Amino acid sequence: MAQCSPPLDDVFQALAHPTRRAVLSRLGTGPASVGELATPFEMALPSFMKHIHLLEDTGLIRTRKSGRVRTCTLEKGSFDLIETWLDQQRSIWEGRTDRLEHFVTTTHEKEGSE
Amino acid sequence: MAQCSPPLDDVFQALAHPTRRAVLSRLGTGPASVGELATPFEMALPSFMKHIHLLEDTGLIRTRKSGRVRTCTLEKGSFDLIETWLDQQRSIWEGRTDRLEHFVTTTHEKEGSE
Repeated sequence: MAQCSPPLDDVFQALAHPTRRAVLSRLGTGPASVGELATPFEMALPSFMKHIHLLEDTGLIRTRKSGRVRTCTLEKGSFDLIETWLDQQRSIWEGRTDRLEHFVTTTHEKEGSE
Repeated sequence: MAQCSPPLDDVFQALAHPTRRAVLSRLGTGPASVGELATPFEMALPSFMKHIHLLEDTGLIRTRKSGRVRTCTLEKGSFDLIETWLDQQRSIWEGRTDRLEHFVTTTHEKEGSE
């Protein structure tokens, strides 16, 4: 289903929930077990695990099970997708500003020479 | 319902759809009517309007109706929310790196003095 659901859709969808953003912020300080991550939230573990699975499926975190403990680690590289998209938007805006500046400059020059 | 649905949730949710991201990119080049914006998409106008309304409700665009034409304009300021969140994440990561560096440096110094 990769074609139907581009990664950027999934990444933004994953970030659209405060619990998932809080998990990502916590993992920004270093890896943590699912138990540690779940502690601040008043949520049943199966519900919390849905958030963890979604973050893992999106590639924003990876998890590894050792015995009975599943440890989660942030995948900082996944944030590049958002950065790249934002950079693209800025380039579009700047392209527009450049065109406006060009218009103003050439209009001004034309008016000056008339 | 503002408390139940923080703006950042809404912004990320709004960005989690390719049509809405395409509209934002188009508006990055300058204001456009709903008709112009809808042209590239094979979509019934009521469906397209849902995307426009969602973008407007989130504050990513504003619209103004003049006669029969509704013109949409990008609200670049709304992107600051994403930038701020990303900056916060980076600060958390850097805080971690700083702590790791401090650990490595002090461990190295301790070992050197022993």
